[in-house]
Parts: sequence; C-alpha cells; structure tokens
Amino acid sequence: MQEPPHGDSASGAGVHILGVGSTAFGPQAVGSFRSLLAEAVETALTDAGIEAAAVDEVHHANFTGALTDAQNHQAPLVADLVGGDVPAIRHENACASGGFAMWSAVRAIRSGAAEIVLVTGVEHLSPLSTGEVTTALAMAADELYEVRNGLTFPGAYALMARSYISAFDPPDPRKALSSIAVKNHAHASVNPLAHFQSTVDLQTAMEAPMVADPLNLYDSCPISDGAAAVVLAATSALPAGAAEAADVRIRGVGAASDHLALQTRSCIHATVATARAAGRAFTDAALTPEDVDIAEVHDCFTIAEVLALEALGFYEPGGALGAADRGETAAGGRLPTNLSGGLKAKGHPVGATGVSQIAELTKLLRGDHPAAADIETPAVGVAHNAGGTVATAVVHLLEVADHG
Amino acid sequence: MQEPPHGDSASGAGVHILGVGSTAFGPQAVGSFRSLLAEAVETALTDAGIEAAAVDEVHHANFTGALTDAQNHQAPLVADLVGGDVPAIRHENACASGGFAMWSAVRAIRSGAAEIVLVTGVEHLSPLSTGEVTTALAMAADELYEVRNGLTFPGAYALMARSYISAFDPPDPRKALSSIAVKNHAHASVNPLAHFQSTVDLQTAMEAPMVADPLNLYDSCPISDGAAAVVLAATSALPAGAAEAADVRIRGVGAASDHLALQTRSCIHATVATARAAGRAFTDAALTPEDVDIAEVHDCFTIAEVLALEALGFYEPGGALGAADRGETAAGGRLPTNLSGGLKAKGHPVGATGVSQIAELTKLLRGDHPAAADIETPAVGVAHNAGGTVATAVVHLLEVADHG
Repeated sequence: MQEPPHGDSASGAGVHILGVGSTAFGPQAVGSFRSLLAEAVETALTDAGIEAAAVDEVHHANFTGALTDAQNHQAPLVADLVGGDVPAIRHENACASGGFAMWSAVRAIRSGAAEIVLVTGVEHLSPLSTGEVTTALAMAADELYEVRNGLTFPGAYALMARSYISAFDPPDPRKALSSIAVKNHAHASVNPLAHFQSTVDLQTAMEAPMVADPLNLYDSCPISDGAAAVVLAATSALPAGAAEAADVRIRGVGAASDHLALQTRSCIHATVATARAAGRAFTDAALTPEDVDIAEVHDCFTIAEVLALEALGFYEPGGALGAADRGETAAGGRLPTNLSGGLKAKGHPVGATGVSQIAELTKLLRGDHPAAADIETPAVGVAHNAGGTVATAVVHLLEVADHG
Repeated sequence: MQEPPHGDSASGAGVHILGVGSTAFGPQAVGSFRSLLAEAVETALTDAGIEAAAVDEVHHANFTGALTDAQNHQAPLVADLVGGDVPAIRHENACASGGFAMWSAVRAIRSGAAEIVLVTGVEHLSPLSTGEVTTALAMAADELYEVRNGLTFPGAYALMARSYISAFDPPDPRKALSSIAVKNHAHASVNPLAHFQSTVDLQTAMEAPMVADPLNLYDSCPISDGAAAVVLAATSALPAGAAEAADVRIRGVGAASDHLALQTRSCIHATVATARAAGRAFTDAALTPEDVDIAEVHDCFTIAEVLALEALGFYEPGGALGAADRGETAAGGRLPTNLSGGLKAKGHPVGATGVSQIAELTKLLRGDHPAAADIETPAVGVAHNAGGTVATAVVHLLEVADHG
C-alpha cells in the first residue's frame, strides 16, 4: 500500500477542486450581492458538472454585508442556492475571509465530515460612498489603537512601505512599486473578469496622484463588487472520469495570526503571519518555495505584493521590491505573480477575493485561463490571502496531477 | 482493540471539554467587548489548568461588532490573548454564531489539525439604543423579503407562535407560554451569571405588556452583553490526571440550514433545521432523545423553547407547549431545560450564547453548577443554538464519563 499523498488527511481524503466560478469584478450598476452569489455558484456547479443537491456543506465568506446590504446571516441564503438543508456557515477574517472559508472547507473534507463542499465569497460595496467604504474597510484594523486615531488602510500600508524602504534603502522605490502596478494591469488586461481592462504605462503609474506617501493611486486596489465560488470534492466523491480531466488538488494549507495593531509588532513590514501560514502550508504539502510555478498573492497595495513574496519565502527580506521591474514576476518571468491581475487590477471584492484566487489558480493549472498561453505549463501554484495589515493570513498550495 | 467511542473521528480523536468560562450576562456599565473576552478567556484557561501558550487554534463568534464597536476582524484580538500566532477565525451565523464556532472547533480536533482549541463568543450591545439593537438583530432575518417590509424578531416569533397555536389549538396558550418564563426566571435566580436574578410570578408574566401578540414582555429575552469561552482538547492532549476529574466529552454534533425567510417555508413553526441538526447529532453520538438528561435550548422567546423541544425529538408536534406548566422541564422534572436561565433569563449576548450553553452544561454535568444540587446527577446533556428564525441550527450532545 502506498503512503497517502502529502496534504491528505489521516483518513486518506485528498481534496480536489471540482469546479470554479467567478463573476466579473468591478462596480455593479445593476444586481445585488444575491445575484452575484447566484452567478458565481451556478458557474462553479456547471464547471464541476454536478447537481446542486450533491453539495454536503457550504462555507461562505463576506466581510461587511451588515453595512452594505443590512444582511448578516448570509450562509442560509447560499444554502438555499443548493437545496437549503445542508450545514452552512459564514467566516469573517476581514480581507482574508475568502481564504479562511477555503481553509475551513478543506478541513470539512479532511475530517471526513463532508465529501462535496461549496465555498463562496461575496462583497457588494457599490451601495456605499467612497467615504463609507473607507470606514467599513477600517473595521479590519484595530479600532481602539489605530482607527480611532485616524488610521485608514492606505495610511497603514504606507507606514509598512516606509518601514520597508527605511530598512532596506532600495535604489528607486517609486519605479519598483509602479512596476508592480504596470505588471498587474497588464495581466488584468487579458482577463475578462478583471475590474481594470486596460494597461497602464510606467510614467503614468509613477506620476499618479499621491494617496498616502509613498503609495499613489496606481499603488492601490480599486473598490470592486464581485463573487466567487469553488466546489471541493474528496477523492472518494470524484465523479467517474474526473481523473481523466486536469485534476487540481489542494496539497497543503496553512493559517496564522499576528497582533491586530501595527504598533504591537516588533517589525511592521515583516508580515510574520504570512511567514507562519506559509511555513505550515509548505510543511503540510511537503513542498518548498522552489516547487512553486505561479502565485496569486494579496496585493491590496503594490507594497503588499512585495511583503508577501518575501514572507512566502520566494525572496530574502528586501529582495522582492525590484522583482516586477526585473520582469521576474510577469507572465514571462520565473515566478509569474498575480496573472489574474491581482487585487490591484482584477479587483478586491473583499469576501470574494480569497475564493477568486483559488478559482484563477485552478484555471491556470488546468490550462483554460486566458493567461495560460503566456506561461510555461505550471504544476504548482500558491494562493496567499491576508486580513487587515496581515493580522490574519492563509496560504493554499495547489497542484495539478500529472496524467501523462 | 476496542472500537472508538461514538462521536470520535476516524483518527480516534475524542473531543473533551477541558475548561469553561463565562462573564456575568447583562448590561455592562463599564468595560468593552475586549474586557468581556479577556475575562471569559482567563476564566476558561484557569478552569482548564493550562497555559495560554498551549492553545493551537482560536474559533471566535460574534454577530454585530461592526455596528456595536466598529470592529470586524476580531479573531486576531482573541489570538492575542493566547500568544498571537495561532490560526484564528471568526464565525457568524446570527444568534447561532457561538454554536457554529463550537461546531468548527470540534472539527479542528476531529480532523487531527489541532489538539487544544479555544472557542470564544462575545457580544457588546450596550453601545446601541434599543431601536438600534432591533435594527442590528434584524440583520439575522431576510432583509429583502422580511426586514424591508417591517418584520422584526418579536414579530417573526409571534408569527411562529400564532402558526403553532392555530395548528394545535392548545387549551391555555397564554398560561403555557408564561409558565416557561416563570421557570427560566426561577432557574436564573440561582445562577450568579444570569442577567435576571429575580423570579417572576405567573400572574405578572401573564399580564405583562404585549410586544407582538401573543408574545409579551416576559416572553422575550433581554438585550445583554457578555462573553463565554470553552477550551477543547483531543484525548491525546489531556493533561495527566484529567481523566480522574469529571471528564465531559462532546459525543455528537450536528448542524443544518433552512430557508432564511419564513415565507419560503412550508410550515413556519416546524423549525426543520433543528430537526435535521438534531438527527445528525444523535446519529453522530449513537444516542436517542431518551438518553438525554438535561437540555439548554435556544429560547430567545418562550415559544422558541417549545419549538426546540419538539424539533429535538423530546415531544411530538404540539406536545411541548404545556411542558413547563406541567413541571416537566423544571429542575425537578423529567427533562430539566435551561437550568442556566436560558436566553430568556440568563440573557442573550448573541455571539456568546452558543458558547455559554456549552459552559453551563459542562458545569451541570461536572456537578459544580449552582443548579446541580437541584437535579439528579445527569449523564448526557444537549445544547441547541439557532440563528434567526431557525434558518441555521446546531446541536451538541455532551456526556460525562463514568469514573465510578
């Protein structure tokens, strides 16, 4: 008898991605969080080739429905989309809500409690003004020690960027940060689901209006609506013939926390929650950063992509800032990063983001993503989703089976 | 080799309740949700006899922190209380948030991912006016089809009560409902953690001002602040000597959903989500309702206790309304129910409620609860937590090991 593959549970239940769906991200002139959810779920079920009634459990992610749509308790609405009588639960860890819903769903299968699990995420920010969105998003930071004193998220990430630049004194941080925006816009421009469908040139990105020094408008992700859905299946529940198709598995998962307030951390640009989550995921998968071919990381601001690539183990501290400028993280580089466009340019509908990352990676690994033609055939991808100023982080390692 | 006890995972990990804590419930003149959480966690860790650093994971419940304290993303704040670097996640299923955090924590242990798990729940409603609380709680119902048209929770449960009374035509529903209030106030009066410390006589309860016919003021739970915490441990992580003390285990769990809006259900007083969750929990535990000695059920209104006792399988439909009047569910009866005082009289700090139910049951099963002297020594207890108008429900079956 062979040993079970790494990342599988004691009971031998591997976790396979049977289907994925994502709405287009962006401001929704019509529709509601309900119609966004319904579209993502229908797309994922169709992609999975299963009936709604096959779903055993629902794990749902949403950040701020209480403020956008006066609707908490959204999980039963998702359950309703698949028949209404399955256990359903909402998870909220700010901008990492979607990734933590995935994490919880993986455990549902590994524990043997469920065989087919639907993961959903949605955010519908359009009902709020920009000021109201800023207030809503600030509830991901520490109200007592940060928000009450005036900190908003552009300000928080600007502090992290200043700390980083102060620590490593890189040669041209403005150009390095803007190169990330240019790259992620270029990736988004070939993704029909992305909020931004246009490229941006380096000069425009560098000269954009300042938001919170050193982060300017093009360093910042937009305010997007959207929903995403993923159908997970235990090995025992794979439909006949599924192993013949491209079979994407979740090989490792890891999650961690850090102090909520930046002031409590010994180093505010180190994002140790990401490092801890990554360490757990790589151990779970028995893989190393060298095994990873493509990455979707949490780039709510350009500096966040830098911090993620370092904490995930792809670069030494101080080494990732110039990666986009050197072409290493573009479609043709050694670690194509945020081929979806990322939060920066695909968009960041908060609860949907972590689920969307898995959907985008799955299509890239299967080869049916618009960007798949631009990269060498990948075998392993990593998804990194972070909450607040990385007070929570969750990492998933996906691999596609070799059917050759 | 013996078969593993029922309710244990394939990996053999039984789930033990190592320690519990609860703040006093009620309006908090001073303090914040942070101080409530800290008190509950410290009490539970002390009760468990472990260091904070022993905790592997945090599962947190809160319903409406965005509105009460402008604070989502609370899980890292709980993680901070136990060292700060463990996976931590918030669960929200309205009034069932606490029970679903428990459900998720049990799975953490059964899956083998964690050995010591901290479960917390908190709600801090004092910052809101009564009108604002009504608006906040309404976000547990269906905004589109119910709340937008004026439905509030007293109204929703009044509809369920009217439907029930119309279906079964009981002889004196007013006296039957008020008897539940009298009983739960009597239970609360001996629980120093309860919001209400006083008894109420039947006439006062029957003649109280009407809120939503047929539910009057004494049919309704109060608006309470509070927090609760539970420490769970895998069998493999039990400290030496723990088996000598009263050992309370979680023997079975079950969860389910129903349509969020009452209008979508074929019968609005049947609470099928409870019945489904109970069916799953009893199957998981290999127990039947006849095995249960004590119950903590979700009595946000007196009618809710009736519906719960029937859907859990303790009474036929139409049979539970007179149970309190007949003395069957009081401390001296055949199924003492809500010995804590229940939501009705211990109070209902939403996110804390489902965790508090487990804490109260644990002390009753261990024999160190103020009400323990009033009942025959129990072996099995059930906890039932419901979200909204029972659109989500979760059931836990606890048993105390026989060390005789």
